[in-house]
Amino acid sequence: MILALAGGVGGAKLAAGLAAVLPPEELAIVVNTGDDFEHLGFAISPDIDTVTYTLAGIANPELGWGIAGESWAFMEQLGRMGGETWFRLGDRDLATHVERTRRLRGGESLTTVTAALASAHGIAHRIVPMADDPAPTIVDTDEGRLAFQDYFVRRQCAPRVKALQLAPDVGPSAAFSALIDDPALEAVVICPSNPWLSVDPILALRGVRSRLRARGVAIVAISPIIGGKAVKGPAAKIMAELGVPVSSAGVAAHYGDFIDGLVIDVTDREEAINGPQLLVTETLMRSPDDRARLASEVIGWVRQWN
Amino acid sequence: MILALAGGVGGAKLAAGLAAVLPPEELAIVVNTGDDFEHLGFAISPDIDTVTYTLAGIANPELGWGIAGESWAFMEQLGRMGGETWFRLGDRDLATHVERTRRLRGGESLTTVTAALASAHGIAHRIVPMADDPAPTIVDTDEGRLAFQDYFVRRQCAPRVKALQLAPDVGPSAAFSALIDDPALEAVVICPSNPWLSVDPILALRGVRSRLRARGVAIVAISPIIGGKAVKGPAAKIMAELGVPVSSAGVAAHYGDFIDGLVIDVTDREEAINGPQLLVTETLMRSPDDRARLASEVIGWVRQWN
Repeated sequence: MILALAGGVGGAKLAAGLAAVLPPEELAIVVNTGDDFEHLGFAISPDIDTVTYTLAGIANPELGWGIAGESWAFMEQLGRMGGETWFRLGDRDLATHVERTRRLRGGESLTTVTAALASAHGIAHRIVPMADDPAPTIVDTDEGRLAFQDYFVRRQCAPRVKALQLAPDVGPSAAFSALIDDPALEAVVICPSNPWLSVDPILALRGVRSRLRARGVAIVAISPIIGGKAVKGPAAKIMAELGVPVSSAGVAAHYGDFIDGLVIDVTDREEAINGPQLLVTETLMRSPDDRARLASEVIGWVRQWN
Repeated sequence: MILALAGGVGGAKLAAGLAAVLPPEELAIVVNTGDDFEHLGFAISPDIDTVTYTLAGIANPELGWGIAGESWAFMEQLGRMGGETWFRLGDRDLATHVERTRRLRGGESLTTVTAALASAHGIAHRIVPMADDPAPTIVDTDEGRLAFQDYFVRRQCAPRVKALQLAPDVGPSAAFSALIDDPALEAVVICPSNPWLSVDPILALRGVRSRLRARGVAIVAISPIIGGKAVKGPAAKIMAELGVPVSSAGVAAHYGDFIDGLVIDVTDREEAINGPQLLVTETLMRSPDDRARLASEVIGWVRQWN
């Protein structure tokens, strides 16, 4: 069983690739919930939704979030009425937030709700929230401490990041914890998500980093940096602000000895990277075929280590 | 100041007529909240919305509820995901429920929220919920006791009504109570809403009937029955089930000596009606002009009594 750790768009794409080439029992996708927040009374889990919609084949390719072919009548009406519109919620996407919120209020765990919503979308693979309890990421910036979505959406990542404040006192969800202990665990694949915003919140949960490392299975990451740029999102900007080289070497240095291997793009084949073993391949995923091909290569690589 | 009591579509139409011919300080519209319920986590107030949308000029004329030109992407997606779709919520309409629910959860009263939403729609006249506390109407039927929307929407009024169980232990909202005591009160106009489902819940609130009667001002009702039929909705069916003549005489008998006057349609000019004084005119409102004309006639009639 491959345990994939995923956050936003890049992570969701590789997760979908893994799901395309592995049967459900051989894959579990643990998703960052550090971005989760309550808005307009809804419990919103952006990364879970991105992974779910991507695996369901309905993700919005233009926006990088939400559902393809979305309409915005709700948001327009809310704006007309003077409501808050800085965090955009599409009409279809809203069904997810309404159902999630209703079920959570009814006492179900985020794990149960996430599984039910994935199932409703016809997804057979496991999508598991990193935590059932709130574990909000706080962004410490030159404009002060910001709630994640205030930084990410409302301020469009404009403030300079000084540090990320994660939730080390929150434990992993029971489902994630069981996956860490699962005898079938073969390898951990850290998807090409933002290491600071999407992956670190997972690894920072109480006991997760040490327990994963203690399993002795291969842990590999796919670098989200290609040719000194992030494929999507603010990873490069944040790395620069934190004084980290904007390169796969910077990513490798950040994960340090937590990872055994790093997958980098052919663009960066000449880069000097210390520490992890390297797999050099095409990591840019433009199509479902790209995702499946990269997923197959990564699986083949980690399985040959065992 | 005219105090109008209103429920669904017919009531909302006359309320809009009254608002078209009276300045804001001379009209207050108290609305039934016996139909209110919580659904999918939203606080839903169907009659308040019908009155608000009608006064705002955005009511959906085909449906008799909701917003004109509505779209249904949310509901379709919810259905695809296996959610509850028997109570239809349009994408634009949803903005109202989200805002109402958010504000109520934040501690605002239904009165405050209703005023804010009316104001957001550019409505200057007062729309006042009959109660701030829940006062749900229960429908006692041959299939047992049903929550109002289970009877009205889910079962499409199919069960036979044996009795209506109202909320006599709930008091009127502070705003409604103040209107009852307002020295400026000239007359009470009971709009052509369903007497059992829409008006009785208002009159049944603790102290309302006796306090209104004690004011000594004219109280008139507009009959919702024309030619032995209800203009809209289940009034005629319910009257028949309760053994009441399906006529304006039946309406007059139901209101009894609570009303001083009854407005009936010219169709029923020959009807023998005991008790109230009668105003015979065209009561069917097909257009905004009809509404304003009927409102003017009713206002002229009640003002000549004082």
